Amino acid sequence: MTSFFSDLLVAISERGRSLIDLQQASPEPKDLQATAKALLSQKGEASGIALASDFFSVYDGLNESELDAFFNMLAEQFGPDLEGVNKIISGLRETLSVDEVLQLHQKSEPQRQELFRRLNQAPQGTLRLVRLREDLLARLEKNPRLAEVDADLHHLFHSWFNRGFLVLKRISWSTPASILEKIIKYEAVHEIASWEDLRQRIEPADRRCYAFFHPALVEEPLIFVEVALGEEIPDAIEPVIAQKRQSVKTADARLATFYSISNCQKGLSGISFGNFLIKQVAQELLSELPQLDAFATLSPMPGFVKWLRHLIDHQEEKKREDVPVVNEEELRAIKHLLASGWPAPADKQQALEKILVPLSAWYFLNAKDRDQKPYDPVARFHLGNGARLERINWLADRSAKSFSQSAGIMVNYLYDLDKIEHNHEAFANQGEVIAASSIARIAKLSSSFQTVEKVS
Amino acid sequence: MTSFFSDLLVAISERGRSLIDLQQASPEPKDLQATAKALLSQKGEASGIALASDFFSVYDGLNESELDAFFNMLAEQFGPDLEGVNKIISGLRETLSVDEVLQLHQKSEPQRQELFRRLNQAPQGTLRLVRLREDLLARLEKNPRLAEVDADLHHLFHSWFNRGFLVLKRISWSTPASILEKIIKYEAVHEIASWEDLRQRIEPADRRCYAFFHPALVEEPLIFVEVALGEEIPDAIEPVIAQKRQSVKTADARLATFYSISNCQKGLSGISFGNFLIKQVAQELLSELPQLDAFATLSPMPGFVKWLRHLIDHQEEKKREDVPVVNEEELRAIKHLLASGWPAPADKQQALEKILVPLSAWYFLNAKDRDQKPYDPVARFHLGNGARLERINWLADRSAKSFSQSAGIMVNYLYDLDKIEHNHEAFANQGEVIAASSIARIAKLSSSFQTVEKVS
Amino acid sequence: MTSFFSDLLVAISERGRSLIDLQQASPEPKDLQATAKALLSQKGEASGIALASDFFSVYDGLNESELDAFFNMLAEQFGPDLEGVNKIISGLRETLSVDEVLQLHQKSEPQRQELFRRLNQAPQGTLRLVRLREDLLARLEKNPRLAEVDADLHHLFHSWFNRGFLVLKRISWSTPASILEKIIKYEAVHEIASWEDLRQRIEPADRRCYAFFHPALVEEPLIFVEVALGEEIPDAIEPVIAQKRQSVKTADARLATFYSISNCQKGLSGISFGNFLIKQVAQELLSELPQLDAFATLSPMPGFVKWLRHLIDHQEEKKREDVPVVNEEELRAIKHLLASGWPAPADKQQALEKILVPLSAWYFLNAKDRDQKPYDPVARFHLGNGARLERINWLADRSAKSFSQSAGIMVNYLYDLDKIEHNHEAFANQGEVIAASSIARIAKLSSSFQTVEKVS
Amino acid sequence: MTSFFSDLLVAISERGRSLIDLQQASPEPKDLQATAKALLSQKGEASGIALASDFFSVYDGLNESELDAFFNMLAEQFGPDLEGVNKIISGLRETLSVDEVLQLHQKSEPQRQELFRRLNQAPQGTLRLVRLREDLLARLEKNPRLAEVDADLHHLFHSWFNRGFLVLKRISWSTPASILEKIIKYEAVHEIASWEDLRQRIEPADRRCYAFFHPALVEEPLIFVEVALGEEIPDAIEPVIAQKRQSVKTADARLATFYSISNCQKGLSGISFGNFLIKQVAQELLSELPQLDAFATLSPMPGFVKWLRHLIDHQEEKKREDVPVVNEEELRAIKHLLASGWPAPADKQQALEKILVPLSAWYFLNAKDRDQKPYDPVARFHLGNGARLERINWLADRSAKSFSQSAGIMVNYLYDLDKIEHNHEAFANQGEVIAASSIARIAKLSSSFQTVEKVS
Repeated sequence: MTSFFSDLLVAISERGRSLIDLQQASPEPKDLQATAKALLSQKGEASGIALASDFFSVYDGLNESELDAFFNMLAEQFGPDLEGVNKIISGLRETLSVDEVLQLHQKSEPQRQELFRRLNQAPQGTLRLVRLREDLLARLEKNPRLAEVDADLHHLFHSWFNRGFLVLKRISWSTPASILEKIIKYEAVHEIASWEDLRQRIEPADRRCYAFFHPALVEEPLIFVEVALGEEIPDAIEPVIAQKRQSVKTADARLATFYSISNCQKGLSGISFGNFLIKQVAQELLSELPQLDAFATLSPMPGFVKWLRHLIDHQEEKKREDVPVVNEEELRAIKHLLASGWPAPADKQQALEKILVPLSAWYFLNAKDRDQKPYDPVARFHLGNGARLERINWLADRSAKSFSQSAGIMVNYLYDLDKIEHNHEAFANQGEVIAASSIARIAKLSSSFQTVEKVS
Repeated sequence: MTSFFSDLLVAISERGRSLIDLQQASPEPKDLQATAKALLSQKGEASGIALASDFFSVYDGLNESELDAFFNMLAEQFGPDLEGVNKIISGLRETLSVDEVLQLHQKSEPQRQELFRRLNQAPQGTLRLVRLREDLLARLEKNPRLAEVDADLHHLFHSWFNRGFLVLKRISWSTPASILEKIIKYEAVHEIASWEDLRQRIEPADRRCYAFFHPALVEEPLIFVEVALGEEIPDAIEPVIAQKRQSVKTADARLATFYSISNCQKGLSGISFGNFLIKQVAQELLSELPQLDAFATLSPMPGFVKWLRHLIDHQEEKKREDVPVVNEEELRAIKHLLASGWPAPADKQQALEKILVPLSAWYFLNAKDRDQKPYDPVARFHLGNGARLERINWLADRSAKSFSQSAGIMVNYLYDLDKIEHNHEAFANQGEVIAASSIARIAKLSSSFQTVEKVS
Repeated sequence: MTSFFSDLLVAISERGRSLIDLQQASPEPKDLQATAKALLSQKGEASGIALASDFFSVYDGLNESELDAFFNMLAEQFGPDLEGVNKIISGLRETLSVDEVLQLHQKSEPQRQELFRRLNQAPQGTLRLVRLREDLLARLEKNPRLAEVDADLHHLFHSWFNRGFLVLKRISWSTPASILEKIIKYEAVHEIASWEDLRQRIEPADRRCYAFFHPALVEEPLIFVEVALGEEIPDAIEPVIAQKRQSVKTADARLATFYSISNCQKGLSGISFGNFLIKQVAQELLSELPQLDAFATLSPMPGFVKWLRHLIDHQEEKKREDVPVVNEEELRAIKHLLASGWPAPADKQQALEKILVPLSAWYFLNAKDRDQKPYDPVARFHLGNGARLERINWLADRSAKSFSQSAGIMVNYLYDLDKIEHNHEAFANQGEVIAASSIARIAKLSSSFQTVEKVS
Repeated sequence: MTSFFSDLLVAISERGRSLIDLQQASPEPKDLQATAKALLSQKGEASGIALASDFFSVYDGLNESELDAFFNMLAEQFGPDLEGVNKIISGLRETLSVDEVLQLHQKSEPQRQELFRRLNQAPQGTLRLVRLREDLLARLEKNPRLAEVDADLHHLFHSWFNRGFLVLKRISWSTPASILEKIIKYEAVHEIASWEDLRQRIEPADRRCYAFFHPALVEEPLIFVEVALGEEIPDAIEPVIAQKRQSVKTADARLATFYSISNCQKGLSGISFGNFLIKQVAQELLSELPQLDAFATLSPMPGFVKWLRHLIDHQEEKKREDVPVVNEEELRAIKHLLASGWPAPADKQQALEKILVPLSAWYFLNAKDRDQKPYDPVARFHLGNGARLERINWLADRSAKSFSQSAGIMVNYLYDLDKIEHNHEAFANQGEVIAASSIARIAKLSSSFQTVEKVS
């Protein structure tokens, strides 16, 4: 007697694994191009699973230069039906009808899309396609032509990894070790040093971890977030992840802090899950702990130091919109900091605080990238989700990584569930940076208050 | 402590259900067009789940004429960006480059596709989209314009219901009743009259039932097949589904007969699962019972009686390719049969056998539809899968339905796993009807042997 | 990858089944006595599972007279070590020390107990021992000697089916059909006529069903209760189990009525589960629906008609304690009822109501069995659990069974969670019948008010 | 929709946990004796769960001396009904009938047994009783009176932890971390140093780990065994548990070696699981890998060094049965070894080999404990299970623990499934030590061949 639904997923995964084992005996390497063509032919309809498996067993054995060649072949040979499209176009009147446009749409679909859909039949096909895209992305910079191929994979994954197919799961100390080791591996913000460290993040009653999974990829988290429950918004990371700390009673928790969000699959980059994850976790927590009255983050601002360099480089051209004018003393301090690294003595750090905190506020409110979005990538993410910049915390992360990217500063974004939608629209439509009023006040402490004036 | 993977699917489904309950309180009906536009806008990015839910809660309350209006609106308002495409076209040189074609492809994608992807975020979104397509298909005949809309849904479902995402599950007497009642409901070939009848088909050791499920639709089988294990290929349906029958010991089974295959979701019509199902079930059975040495079907030939009508209608025009010439006596017997229904006396039935069995063999070998594929839909399916027509069984199904469609005849298709691929290709590329040599011999017993000559 | 805990139970059951299949090939029937002796010997330690399996495969093939012989053998051959005990006794001083008593206890344990414990190693051993006791109980009346054997099984089951090992499970429309068919089969109070009837009792939002299971018997419910949620205490069974009825919204439910409790395993008779079941279901419902403010039953009084016969038989001996004195007219009406069955005309029924309802109240308050417990078995159960008799409902069940046992009357017992313990103790220690004050008032309407006086 | 059976066990455990949480608010400590008495009274029938919970929440807070007092109270107050038994005895004839003996048996059952059965109703009751016995066993030596109490717990656990209720589960890298950490903790033979070390023992294809679980204790393994698959019987532990080693392909495995067996629950000591575990794991492995043709162990001989001391102490009394006479040189070498620990130089080790290996063979064949069972505890276990002593491996374990207990020697026991029963009986009935013939030959190499003569 079996438990019906519970076995469904396991079935997908097991089948995949056992088939992979079987196929390893597959005879000699075959031509990938020929296999791909066969998969798109009549033969592919009858023997899709076998052909897709063959494909991947050859693919898995390619070396770097063979991979280069393979992706080029993919770009050149499996694009849209160029001839067909041109034929249609040449026979068309000036203005196309809906029917003609739809016909054009179909004809212009690159054959790669159907190829990838058929490859998905292989055991563990989805996972292997995600890995294939990882290989592809690694080549994108030096071979821009591959952007075409990537566009097809992106389009497919955008469809397959639709929010409606994702499953939120709590990661706990009862989670299989095979999943937990991936949490350790994929943690991208605050490194998990050991299994004991991991346990401290998922076992105590005031700690949570949630991940999104896709049914065809059950052993691979897509993204996960670590949460600390507490009585107030934390202003530094150390007390949050310390191994020896006093746990807060669940009943006393008033606030949930998302202190680490990590994407797990490079092959899914550009497919956004974080937005959904944060909102669903917030709802999950609320239904378990209705007394919670705020959701916040404790986040780095990883573009800040890079922007300080930019500020120094363009200080001469007074009154640029993207950098404030600083005075001589400030400039010297910043230059010294960038050149010699972090100063140990506490008094020097205090001096820096007076310079860097106002500048960081200015940075959040005014610094933009080429698309006129916030210069800071983490700010782009949270503000884009409808969060509000709440507080700047000086020396909140004393790790080397934090000093080199965020000058040791961390910030809190606040997720006010009632205002998320409004904030998101103001941000998306008017480019408004939603921030607590205190942030603007702090920004004015910077020596270059004129530029700030323009903002608020 | 939870069982990790087993809960994943349940999670999808439960979430869906509980959210549907919540949303019922949704205030006043909203404008579907406005909701759809909002879903495609910035607002949709922030509040997609809520908007998609709103959409379906209004949709679920539409009456028939409102449904008509809705689908028309979908056809007219959410197509491709006509203006945009025309703009591109007008500015193009004579012959388009790959880049231009890809740009064209993107621009010409109907907005509906993204709309449907976003609607999928609603609780139980996938199921509701399948139901929506069911509503759409019911309107297609009288409103051909909707074919555009259907093309988008078909394209999406083709991608989402990819073989790689399907899960094969055995349906047994330990399966939840909520699933079993759907098996009863969806059985389309040999009606399941009661729970006791169902039990006879799934509980005995020599009976099996398998279904495909999709992870986002766990409570809905997509397609299922009923299997009888036995010592030889059955030549009639009654002994197979009889309630009182001697069960064959599993160890004695040499042969598995697929005696009923039913598609369950009208909203997925055109998305083909049967091919994969039969092959995977065959492999599943083989791994459990390695002694099995053949897989066959016991199938109706539901186009035969219709074709007999066609034969009578065109008998005058001698030597058509699609009907044989029959003699006077035969013609009279067929006409009488079609006019007065099935004759009770055994001797009359015997006379009919001599006429109809050779004709049915001719029918299989020669009768084609407009696309030059076999006239019989079930033959199209099994031959298309790579099966071989093995045997014609006279009076194999004495149900009214069978008499009215198949003249009481059933046939066996044989799935020889080693030859499936070869057969499929011969059928798909050369249009060859793969059949046992005896079938051609029987066809020659028909009075019109000339036409038969041309076939073999 | 497997879901760890969820498979544990399945494992027990599967193992059992597959081993049973294997063992069917077991060669020739063996001597049960010899097998039992081997099982208790050194050989039994090494090969317990095989010997226990052998035992049951022979046992399963015994005919009735062989079963008789087997149980006699069990009574005679596997009792306590008589000689050993007598030896100890003869050597003892007048007054035994604790040590001596414990030694005596060990020596006097019948060998059957260890035999049964070892038999439990057989595949599905626990289930088969429960069935074995069922066979034994069927022989108990005509062979009182077997009470010894039964005492051993009772002692063992009392230990094994400890409350701490039972699992409460909701039975729903998603429960495996193999379990549901047992609910249909075991329902002992209000017959479930069909699967559709079953569905009406478990699928609507205002209906619940819960069962106790034991981990070693996962496919067999031990006891189950059917619950109706509603706005008030029902006064008749028909509206509760009607197939066409208006479902109450869960949010509006104020009250849960236990309208049917069925023990499933004859082989576990005397091992009481009902008490725990009712209390745990009440807590389960409360945690899901905190707005519930009462738990009641709708119960038969199956001893009433039998007691009416008793009343007539002893009417001559005035002033007995166990029957009231009724007047001539009443006596005639009761006699007529018992002789001729239920009167159809409504007016006759009304006349009966005036006689029977007060008598039923008297019956509840005063009629006792030999142990001075309530004469009515259902009353013994619910009052023993700490419930209170709340209301008597005339013509609440018009089934033939109800007329023949309960004169068509049903009653409500009320479970007030705060008073259960107090009620139970008053009942158990002082024999107090806890009832609403109205019951005593109604009892006084009986012609024989003197006897009532004595009660209150 | 829920997966029915899979939730059963989880249900037991979850319920336990949540109830424990609830009860923590329990007001002031209560008198354990009074609670125990209440539990055995009428009150206990109505409110057993609450009283049992109260009991444990007080128990959990006892300090050492309170624990002492508690167990004494248990020994003195909850024994058998002494007065009752004496009353019966005094009224009896000289020779007791079966009925009288059974009556005596019932009366002489200590009340503790029912007390413990009722305590089992508490959340996690079974686990807590196991822990309670652990506390009790720790006091047994200094307070022999408690043996009475222990006898009751032992009797109960012998019944509850019946083989028929145990579930075998494979422990893998997909097992929940909460279980895996217990494997690390409970490993008693070859320490698991880290999670990485654990992974090496359960993840590679040629390594297995299996544990027994009880349904009421799902988060606690009872006993587990670690298995190495390979091509031949290993003669040293290091290559087996080395972190860097070449994995054997499953298909090439011919032999399974049980290299570590650990009991997990001190509170279950005396309840034997190892025998069943080894046999069931052997069957499990055989059904997965039918090519396996032998099952062996790689075991320590932890009594050897202790026995060498014994040998030295009694060397003077020539010709004892339990120690052989050794020559002067040998005696000196052994004394030196025991006094100064393990000699580093390889040549000295070689010299020792010639002395110790024959002595170890002698030890296995002849050294007995007081019950005339093998002196070595591990030998008692495996020989008692029906295994055969196969080979002695010199310097097979170079750990400090092994040197201090087994003089660095490990042995292989062979489990020949066809001979297990026969071996077990020869061992149990005739005290025969089943060993490969080579063992006796090696034993004769010892200087004291006379004593060896007597054995074979």
